[in-house]
Amino acid sequence: MPLVIGVLAETHPGERRLSVVPDVVKKYQGLGARVVMQKGAGLPAHFRDADFAEVALVERADEVCAEADVVFCVQPPAPATLAALKPGSVLLGLLQPWASAERARQLAEGQVTAFALELLPRISRAQSMDALSSQGAVAGYECALIAADHSPKFFPMLTYAAGTIRPAKVLVIGAGVAGLQAIATARRIGAMVEAYDVRPETREQVESLGAKFIDTGVAAAGSGGYARELTDEEKAKQAERLARAVAQCDALITTAALPGRPAPRIIGADMIARMKPGAVVVDMAADTGGNVEGTVAGDKVWINDVLVIGPTHIPSRMPVHASEMLAKNLFNFISPFIRDGALALDWEDEVISGSCLTHAGEIRHPGVKQALGL
Amino acid sequence: MPLVIGVLAETHPGERRLSVVPDVVKKYQGLGARVVMQKGAGLPAHFRDADFAEVALVERADEVCAEADVVFCVQPPAPATLAALKPGSVLLGLLQPWASAERARQLAEGQVTAFALELLPRISRAQSMDALSSQGAVAGYECALIAADHSPKFFPMLTYAAGTIRPAKVLVIGAGVAGLQAIATARRIGAMVEAYDVRPETREQVESLGAKFIDTGVAAAGSGGYARELTDEEKAKQAERLARAVAQCDALITTAALPGRPAPRIIGADMIARMKPGAVVVDMAADTGGNVEGTVAGDKVWINDVLVIGPTHIPSRMPVHASEMLAKNLFNFISPFIRDGALALDWEDEVISGSCLTHAGEIRHPGVKQALGL
Repeated sequence: MPLVIGVLAETHPGERRLSVVPDVVKKYQGLGARVVMQKGAGLPAHFRDADFAEVALVERADEVCAEADVVFCVQPPAPATLAALKPGSVLLGLLQPWASAERARQLAEGQVTAFALELLPRISRAQSMDALSSQGAVAGYECALIAADHSPKFFPMLTYAAGTIRPAKVLVIGAGVAGLQAIATARRIGAMVEAYDVRPETREQVESLGAKFIDTGVAAAGSGGYARELTDEEKAKQAERLARAVAQCDALITTAALPGRPAPRIIGADMIARMKPGAVVVDMAADTGGNVEGTVAGDKVWINDVLVIGPTHIPSRMPVHASEMLAKNLFNFISPFIRDGALALDWEDEVISGSCLTHAGEIRHPGVKQALGL
Repeated sequence: MPLVIGVLAETHPGERRLSVVPDVVKKYQGLGARVVMQKGAGLPAHFRDADFAEVALVERADEVCAEADVVFCVQPPAPATLAALKPGSVLLGLLQPWASAERARQLAEGQVTAFALELLPRISRAQSMDALSSQGAVAGYECALIAADHSPKFFPMLTYAAGTIRPAKVLVIGAGVAGLQAIATARRIGAMVEAYDVRPETREQVESLGAKFIDTGVAAAGSGGYARELTDEEKAKQAERLARAVAQCDALITTAALPGRPAPRIIGADMIARMKPGAVVVDMAADTGGNVEGTVAGDKVWINDVLVIGPTHIPSRMPVHASEMLAKNLFNFISPFIRDGALALDWEDEVISGSCLTHAGEIRHPGVKQALGL
């Protein structure tokens, strides 16, 4: 019996990505695995069933679960689907490990070996599996486009027969993968870009993209590549310098995230009130509470004459390539352990042990257990 | 009594531009003119009344007309406003001269001297007054952003830890000002761009922007910089070669316009049917009937798995800079004839005589008279 890989259709509203793409399915088949997928699972990402060669198509999620030894998803499956997973089977995806103690318990009780890519150790070797980074790059690109598309001004300098239009000023807060991609994209379109991050070591990356780094005098490098939370005094100092930059920009893109926590509130109503008429704000953290006071997730709101946009499900705005990147991340994670059509996980491997949410009836991840009070 | 310049608020639904901007108002004042403007006229373009120094603010359009010797508008004013214009006063804007015999008659009977910037002779000296070009540049830029924002793929090549994303293929139909700006913008964002125009002399411009020119073997250079209409045989030959390019692209932007006529139908349903799943079409000509079969003006429709977008009022998506450009065009048109606070039109001037729709009780433009059967 060869290893059976199962692919679930996504059911979360607004989710359009798929956990595999046709080329990656071929690679699994090349490793001796058989693939079973829900009918039409790829349609929201513009992949048709016929694009997947030699894949067994089934109607329902529980039929996938009943057959599969390894099940791929993008978002956490519904409880009924989790209940259908075979004991001993592997579930792999962006499982939102910090979101639900209920789900972690259900997976443990069901004897499912669940890997959440959010838990991936941030080590060099794991970069090719890093779905948060790949999807962050998609989100940063999209948010720069959203800002440009909603700005009442040209981003680039433009010389025309009656004069010259000056380039727009874009301010990007947070210089992680998403922020850097937003900077790069706004620069490509032609804007002058300033950027800020509490981690001063990001200055070089920001400057390498042709943007100006804003120095607030506050440094807060944290662990795992994320920033630590700031003290109140640091927050005030940061806010003062930032408020000046915010008041001068034509478009503001905020990308600050804390793993498993609500997004930090960086831009207050007072800062928005000082922005130029027609300025645009894109709050990439809308899904997790927002970096900006007044952001409404999934909507656009005018605050005075400033348009504040809170896009949700951002990677799903670009499902073809977001799926391709995610599918490759998942493949790079699991494929080293597939040999001759069988799965053999190596629990000594830092990537495997570090990303494990549940295994053998237990919730394994210490950080998640602590965060959920388990 | 100094010359009084009047600025009307725009009333067409979807119109956000203004016919002046604060800097241009200062210039009129510098020429000795007094400016009267409707309260709040600039708000849709993010200009506040306080941004305009020493401007007389009035509530209603007819109050502007009662005072003004020269009245600026973007779109044609409503009949009641036209009726309020003083005999002998000048009206200047994008008056849609081909759209309404009624309006032309009303202007003539009211003894209004009306200049429609659409009628501007396409000569070198008039380039700085060419509102169709400046607004076309805005539209081309916007349509490239709309295409990028709606594409399920990255436009640029992207190298990330797990691989490389290939750049998207963008096809631009029509290489006028709008098409060239769409090409330039799609290239900036990082796409591979192909372009097509019936006027083979556009090849060099297309190639200078880093795009590939599609040669269909059909040439149709017309007068005034626009293309002539094609014969049926030419259309078939063009369609065959274009269909291949359309089938291969990820995003299609169509920008073909004929002055004062419905937009030419270039992309048939059969061509859309052959496009890739997830492909995006932006039909810039939606306002005038569309270049694409199935376009719905002001809406986005899925045709199979292809998203066809028919944006309307495109320059109003970017009202700050669109207004700035338009205001400068209008200023460059009229300011040579303002001296010491008085207007003295030179009817020997090709620009003045060529752009005139009505004067001294007559409809003056031969092309418009013919087109409207007057």
